[in-house]
Amino acid sequence: MLINKLAIIGVGLIGGSLARALRRAGVCKHISGYGRNQLSMQKALELGVIDDYSDDITRVVNNADVVVLATPLATIEPLLESLKAAIKPHTIITDVGSAKASVVRAARKVLNNSLERFVPGHPIAGTEQSGVEASFADLFVDHMVILTPLEENDPEAVSLIRQMWEVCGATVVSLSVDHHDQVLAATSHLPHVLAYALIDCLATMDEHDEIFRFSAGGFRDFTRIASSSPEMWSDICIANRENLLQVIDQFANHLGEISALIRSNDSDRLRKVFARAKQTRDTMLAERQTLLTKTKN
Amino acid sequence: MLINKLAIIGVGLIGGSLARALRRAGVCKHISGYGRNQLSMQKALELGVIDDYSDDITRVVNNADVVVLATPLATIEPLLESLKAAIKPHTIITDVGSAKASVVRAARKVLNNSLERFVPGHPIAGTEQSGVEASFADLFVDHMVILTPLEENDPEAVSLIRQMWEVCGATVVSLSVDHHDQVLAATSHLPHVLAYALIDCLATMDEHDEIFRFSAGGFRDFTRIASSSPEMWSDICIANRENLLQVIDQFANHLGEISALIRSNDSDRLRKVFARAKQTRDTMLAERQTLLTKTKN
Repeated sequence: MLINKLAIIGVGLIGGSLARALRRAGVCKHISGYGRNQLSMQKALELGVIDDYSDDITRVVNNADVVVLATPLATIEPLLESLKAAIKPHTIITDVGSAKASVVRAARKVLNNSLERFVPGHPIAGTEQSGVEASFADLFVDHMVILTPLEENDPEAVSLIRQMWEVCGATVVSLSVDHHDQVLAATSHLPHVLAYALIDCLATMDEHDEIFRFSAGGFRDFTRIASSSPEMWSDICIANRENLLQVIDQFANHLGEISALIRSNDSDRLRKVFARAKQTRDTMLAERQTLLTKTKN
Repeated sequence: MLINKLAIIGVGLIGGSLARALRRAGVCKHISGYGRNQLSMQKALELGVIDDYSDDITRVVNNADVVVLATPLATIEPLLESLKAAIKPHTIITDVGSAKASVVRAARKVLNNSLERFVPGHPIAGTEQSGVEASFADLFVDHMVILTPLEENDPEAVSLIRQMWEVCGATVVSLSVDHHDQVLAATSHLPHVLAYALIDCLATMDEHDEIFRFSAGGFRDFTRIASSSPEMWSDICIANRENLLQVIDQFANHLGEISALIRSNDSDRLRKVFARAKQTRDTMLAERQTLLTKTKN
């Protein structure tokens, strides 16, 4: 058995899907859950996602082999404070946060620099849905999980967390904490901010009813991520603020350049910028598919 | 028979799908095609999308009941010049362009203000694909088509174009030219510019390989429209430049406000902005679905 007792802190889309995937793979004997919302925990129990839950986090993490923190980033530090006295020496703690430096900072502070068995992680998977009802066992299949192992990490702890995600069908890769946060600011945090900003902008326009009425599939896809959890995403934006502000500035400059081409009726150069973007995206998607296929074979 | 002879100028995704839908409905006796690319026209013929084609546009539109202009916006004026001598008094001309004022200006100029049978239209449907190979008969089912009828329009001409789209499964609505262009600038043209700008921005970053490698489903959906035709979209941006520049400015202001909240660590207000955006989007999608259902029943 890979994991005798798993403790999931925050049984939502990610925590719930991880529990479902590990249970289906038969590598987990017992799964305990902890969450703020007792109705939601009851639902998780009824759905068979967890075996039990408690509103006492020390009971949930007691004797766990692995504790997975799957809650909004701002809650990580207080949660670590409330569970640290109850964890056993063999317990490995990991998380699923979209920004890693703030999590590592919190862990370093609360765990008094004892980070041998604290392995930061981030599954690159999700939907705009939230909550255990939206969780499903296939969420991580053919998706990447980035681990950002720390110098102090016990290699066996890293290895077990890697196996845990591979069992769920994910491709696991390692990055440094800083590199992860820079890359994710660009590929994930910036697009979310743009989608929220667009909807917020359109909602204030005079003809906003018609704007939404005449939206097509492209608009729905473009703004899908603006239906993501506001709490989770405001936490991510604050947690990764330096990197995010930098890419927002870079984006604003590019948008300004495109505006200038439109203003000056420069359709030749505009077409070239659009063609280069299309080419980049089409090539990128093809390469990403090849990489996922290669890594799995 | 609704249409004895239909002439499609530009047999790509939209023109090809319209031909397929009308043929399937059995309301069109003969479909002639015209296009720049002879290989593509040959393909359209082989796929059974058109009955014949010619590189002489006057032969294609000769005796047509309806001529559909389905080419990039910058080509509308020269195409009208080349076909105007060949059209019969009964021929109705319509188009499918994403911006309407520039099309109407071109028609007014070329047709010497004889706009009785020139009915501007815009199907709110499409994919990021281009070309006749990507066309399919169901493209317009449960989608909206906006007509922007002109004062001079013969009501019978408007009625026939409306029927043509309804036969394809679309819901047809009318807007004024100016209103259409303002609404579409916000709901369609701005998102396309943002998607192109994002990809262009990310492509110039040092870690661009990793940025694309670690992108997830949200990013792919968000940037899907950046794989649209560069020629078509640079034409749209120039054709609707005043409205588009205005909404780009408004968007840039909203992005600046969100940046300021991130910079000042104001997670409370950030969460409120994101929550308002999510609420707007979720409500909007539900209302749009209701509207489409109501209109069809």
